[in-house]
Amino acid sequence: MTSTTSLGEGKRVVAICGGVGGAKLALGLQDVVGEALDVAVNVADDFSHLGLEISPDLDTVLYTLGGLNDEKRGWGRADETWNFMAAMAQIGGETWFSLGDRDLALHVERSKRRAAGETLTQFARDIAQRFSIRANILPVSDGRIRTMVDTSIGELEFQRYFVERRCEPEVKAIRFDVEQGLSMTHDVANALSASDLGMIVVCPSNPYLSIDPILAVPGMAEAIRSARVPVVAVSPIIGGQAVKGPTRKIMMELGIPVSNVGIARHYGDLIDGLVIDDSDSGEADTLPLATYATPTLMTDKASRCSLAEHVLAFGAHLGRDSRWQSRMAAQ
Amino acid sequence: MTSTTSLGEGKRVVAICGGVGGAKLALGLQDVVGEALDVAVNVADDFSHLGLEISPDLDTVLYTLGGLNDEKRGWGRADETWNFMAAMAQIGGETWFSLGDRDLALHVERSKRRAAGETLTQFARDIAQRFSIRANILPVSDGRIRTMVDTSIGELEFQRYFVERRCEPEVKAIRFDVEQGLSMTHDVANALSASDLGMIVVCPSNPYLSIDPILAVPGMAEAIRSARVPVVAVSPIIGGQAVKGPTRKIMMELGIPVSNVGIARHYGDLIDGLVIDDSDSGEADTLPLATYATPTLMTDKASRCSLAEHVLAFGAHLGRDSRWQSRMAAQ
Repeated sequence: MTSTTSLGEGKRVVAICGGVGGAKLALGLQDVVGEALDVAVNVADDFSHLGLEISPDLDTVLYTLGGLNDEKRGWGRADETWNFMAAMAQIGGETWFSLGDRDLALHVERSKRRAAGETLTQFARDIAQRFSIRANILPVSDGRIRTMVDTSIGELEFQRYFVERRCEPEVKAIRFDVEQGLSMTHDVANALSASDLGMIVVCPSNPYLSIDPILAVPGMAEAIRSARVPVVAVSPIIGGQAVKGPTRKIMMELGIPVSNVGIARHYGDLIDGLVIDDSDSGEADTLPLATYATPTLMTDKASRCSLAEHVLAFGAHLGRDSRWQSRMAAQ
Repeated sequence: MTSTTSLGEGKRVVAICGGVGGAKLALGLQDVVGEALDVAVNVADDFSHLGLEISPDLDTVLYTLGGLNDEKRGWGRADETWNFMAAMAQIGGETWFSLGDRDLALHVERSKRRAAGETLTQFARDIAQRFSIRANILPVSDGRIRTMVDTSIGELEFQRYFVERRCEPEVKAIRFDVEQGLSMTHDVANALSASDLGMIVVCPSNPYLSIDPILAVPGMAEAIRSARVPVVAVSPIIGGQAVKGPTRKIMMELGIPVSNVGIARHYGDLIDGLVIDDSDSGEADTLPLATYATPTLMTDKASRCSLAEHVLAFGAHLGRDSRWQSRMAAQ
């Protein structure tokens, strides 16, 4: 089975993607559909630090799809060194957010180019080209949206919660601080309205911290709904746990069942189908939408590509499904 | 002989200092007089690069007096790595000005603090403390002065001439671009007017590119002249050559004799005495001011301290000299 065939030859795919977990599936999708992949990336974790513009999810996607990421550490670049951080500590600089020596280049260059008027979209396009990335890496917006986490110790900027406090404070609510007039980019709008779009994949990133802020960009959720292609989410839950990061902890703190039911309810009618892990296949019957169970843990190229192919095949199947067809017709 | 004794117990010393050569003597002076040393450092080589505020001479002085400098390379930090630069090259960033991974910390932190309103003087004071530097490291000004080099290929900013073009274009003239209202700092003014000041040392930095822009800061030359202490320059010429850098080439291009006569004429009545290298002692009789010949090549701690002690002793001797006394009285 090749999924491009399943999906329809020449059909494009849009991946809605946060950081690490999402980037892994995006890499798998790139391996399968190559240039036909557009990755719409979360920018609400972006922040200014030490005078530098930092885009954690975008950089994770760039490094991962460029084959430069550190798979073991889970973030940042492979063969990284930390002498900048050591020197920062020596002079009393802020060290709570780790910046590798190689990684710094992206932040310094981005800050310089953005100060000169280049958009994040233009920057990402150029870097993707230099990293020989085949997919289009598209920040969901060139404007400012920031994830704010209301916690037991007060409201925190995302990186202060996520990195500095290591997700320890209890989450009471999450909101997105959106600048006036924020919009998705033309590139993302074009990708979602392309006549040859075949499906939309919501990657297994944290739904609350990584996917929601993408959907919070004005017009984004509507553009997904009006794309008239199957929308398939890959659940971040495996065996009732989140693979990585604070998904499980946050779901519990927000009173959401840590299960695919919780995930399905969260996405609601935005998605047409949910890919769940084999180990959770018992849940399938309890879910209010089409599901597909397959191993979703991505540990290597084979498992990434396999999941990507199953996701694409599931999407193609949904597209042929009469219920989905009639729902689309009814819109 | 201890020079503090020669100079007078408790007397302070101001060193007028550029980068590498000057920093070596400043280190020697620090070894001899410790906290009694104020180093007034050139800031006209400073520039913005990649959005970062870079102060090459100040950093050379901080690294050298902090014992962190790379003696072999002659600039930057010891145990430096270059992964940031490699990553910059990979993404098409500017690489003509080398920034080491550890060195970057100083530029990032300085840029951040200056953006927040901290002066270069405050920054240097804090870093000097963190590097356990005993001397006071004083940028000559917190304002903006820039060395501009008129060359055979047009006028170049200093670093474009010095680093990017490796001093290859022929120098036709050097000028200093001085912002309106530029002044020396209060710290430098206080150091030069201190009641317990014993002498002023003009370090063996490039007179045209490193010392002149210090003297070009409004009020600086007058403050040196009115300090009523001996002013001793250490010549950068050894055996008719400059030890390092483009001093010799620039002197030839500007039609100045590459000799201590050229140096003495250049400083004119600003200085009371010139320390020359032993190998040039034959020149002593041709010089229009008091001279002292001693080995001036600083290759290790012993030679740095020995030169510093000789310079201090020479200054003390000048201070007791009847001609200098009457000249001071005549002012």
